[in-house]
Amino acid sequence: MRFLHTSDWHLGRIFHGIHLTDDQAHILDQFIKLIHDAKPDAVLIAGDIYDRSVPPHEAVNLLDEVLSRILIDYRVPVIVIAGNHDSPQRLGFGHRLLAGRGLYIVSQINNGLVPVVLQDEHGPVYFCAVPYVEPPVVREKLGAADVHDHDRAMAMLVRHLKDQVPRGARTVALAHAYVTGGEGSESERPLSIGGADTVDAAYFQSFHYAALGHLHKPQSAGNEHIRYAGSLMKYSFSEAKHKKSVTLVEMDARGRTTYETVSLSPRRDVRCLAGYLKDILAGPQNGENKEDYIMVTLKDTGAILDAIGKLREVYPNVLHIERPHITVGGELHGPGGDHRRLGEVDLFASFFTQVTGTEINRVQEEVFTEIVEQVYRNEREVRV
Amino acid sequence: MRFLHTSDWHLGRIFHGIHLTDDQAHILDQFIKLIHDAKPDAVLIAGDIYDRSVPPHEAVNLLDEVLSRILIDYRVPVIVIAGNHDSPQRLGFGHRLLAGRGLYIVSQINNGLVPVVLQDEHGPVYFCAVPYVEPPVVREKLGAADVHDHDRAMAMLVRHLKDQVPRGARTVALAHAYVTGGEGSESERPLSIGGADTVDAAYFQSFHYAALGHLHKPQSAGNEHIRYAGSLMKYSFSEAKHKKSVTLVEMDARGRTTYETVSLSPRRDVRCLAGYLKDILAGPQNGENKEDYIMVTLKDTGAILDAIGKLREVYPNVLHIERPHITVGGELHGPGGDHRRLGEVDLFASFFTQVTGTEINRVQEEVFTEIVEQVYRNEREVRV
Repeated sequence: MRFLHTSDWHLGRIFHGIHLTDDQAHILDQFIKLIHDAKPDAVLIAGDIYDRSVPPHEAVNLLDEVLSRILIDYRVPVIVIAGNHDSPQRLGFGHRLLAGRGLYIVSQINNGLVPVVLQDEHGPVYFCAVPYVEPPVVREKLGAADVHDHDRAMAMLVRHLKDQVPRGARTVALAHAYVTGGEGSESERPLSIGGADTVDAAYFQSFHYAALGHLHKPQSAGNEHIRYAGSLMKYSFSEAKHKKSVTLVEMDARGRTTYETVSLSPRRDVRCLAGYLKDILAGPQNGENKEDYIMVTLKDTGAILDAIGKLREVYPNVLHIERPHITVGGELHGPGGDHRRLGEVDLFASFFTQVTGTEINRVQEEVFTEIVEQVYRNEREVRV
Repeated sequence: MRFLHTSDWHLGRIFHGIHLTDDQAHILDQFIKLIHDAKPDAVLIAGDIYDRSVPPHEAVNLLDEVLSRILIDYRVPVIVIAGNHDSPQRLGFGHRLLAGRGLYIVSQINNGLVPVVLQDEHGPVYFCAVPYVEPPVVREKLGAADVHDHDRAMAMLVRHLKDQVPRGARTVALAHAYVTGGEGSESERPLSIGGADTVDAAYFQSFHYAALGHLHKPQSAGNEHIRYAGSLMKYSFSEAKHKKSVTLVEMDARGRTTYETVSLSPRRDVRCLAGYLKDILAGPQNGENKEDYIMVTLKDTGAILDAIGKLREVYPNVLHIERPHITVGGELHGPGGDHRRLGEVDLFASFFTQVTGTEINRVQEEVFTEIVEQVYRNEREVRV
């Protein structure tokens, strides 16, 4: 069996004010061409299909279009799990009916989680698809009082699915999680604030392949066959150096897997330029695309009138400028370090110190953490 | 062929602050029992499935549940058109895939509109399903420069569908529109402000049955076989006297149709009580349900402390109180007449006169109308 593993499409993403739907449509066209060429037996999408629980309707149309083409034109079954950005209810609409057409959307654990079984010439493969679920929901639905973090929740859900698989069968896991030791980027929304969001890679060890989502950099996690496909595109400037790809996996009659990564070309790359304004204004070198989405770090120390305006005459899609050296001139006093690389809690602690002149204490930090968690929880399912 | 015609479910409706999803689930349970008993060959839902373009996720879950039961448990095909409250894109997700399971969602005219064909022992029946579409969209998609109102738009769309039906075939229309002469209620959102929203019943004359949606009162429109099923429930106090029902239609081998209406019982009725506080506080008579949703019109003229609190001790779901006689005592000066029965423009004109002491002029009225139309247009598809 051959399958394509992808994840973190984040359809409807807005990147520094730019709606990325057209860029996403461009790259998904290539994804469909890849399906045409590689003729996979299945497509696995490991969560964060949409960027938010209520995506813009253009994103809904795009997903409808892409899935319809894969399923109707190429008759390739698709297994989708919900990620932490997806609304389980909205993404799951029609899932029972759609399963009959080969589109398996696993977004809720209400009605009992069962493996999706697909066949090849060697027999069945059991896809144990674990949707992203908050630990309290697992606690309630599975009646497991001791599930207080993502690690325990994953352990429960994987065991629940694995128990339904005949011994010796070929198995693939799908999960949306932060496996311990994985390398994050700036564009992943934390699953919980304060640390207890990682899960042990050990839960996926006994599968013949684990198709993971959440981390945006393509990477293996603990073992070659436990793998993040990475996001469809670069969704932050911290990912400028990533090589984005989808993963094409071959499974043999005994379940052994090998994989290769296939790069897709974005309409516009995401890049970082650093240097003096004068040099950057000299323009693109070596066939670089001037339409790329660009962050510029200026080395100039003095004041510059309308730097972004000047830069956009050469690079129309400059989206962000940093001027780390301007602080020398005394115009700005930022927090120490690069604030874009700090988590919410550290960022707030730094702000707190700036404003009050004292270090944040443990109680204050806990109050803040609780508020941020609340905000994320609400954001996950906003009643509109 | 036997089919059930229903419309205007408005799932996710909030009625005077009350989320009606549980009431809607209650009545849809009965709808499913009716399907069990009446064994129809099809279910037609003539628009306004949801109350708004981004419905609460509970409403999405409810629709998923209901449609899955009808299609999977009873294997009855369902044809759904979008109404003016629905988001064409969100409602239409998966429509090509779902059509293969017998769920025909017709919400956009992008990909060409084709009749849905269902068979009975006498041959095919052509269902010409016309989704609610704004006239400018029809103008653009069908390249018809002269479509400036709903009447022309409907004429175009019906003709476009009818042209694809063999001569002499049995035909059913589905449409979401305000047919001239129909009787409105307060809970229908105007299709356009200022009058040009009605369509001629003549377009439906040549069909063997027309299953209409939009008006909330069950009624025929121009002819017995051109019919509004009415809304699932009472969605305003102006509908307190309606008898809500769904319509069960029998079509014979030659296309002749007869129908009967079937009433469904709400968990709580919507009722209006009028009288003196003292009498109303005497409580429910003749087996009336004290849990009903109630509007009270008090005849008392003097001041009453916490009238709603007192009433809710007897009727917990009193949602609105009117005191038309209190104006005599000089406490309130409302606009003349019942403001709940005025359209936006009339209501504003009345307000304008109250505030400025002068009548609104034509230009001012046009400016206001334009703004209201803009608001409705935005509301139809809010980018969140």
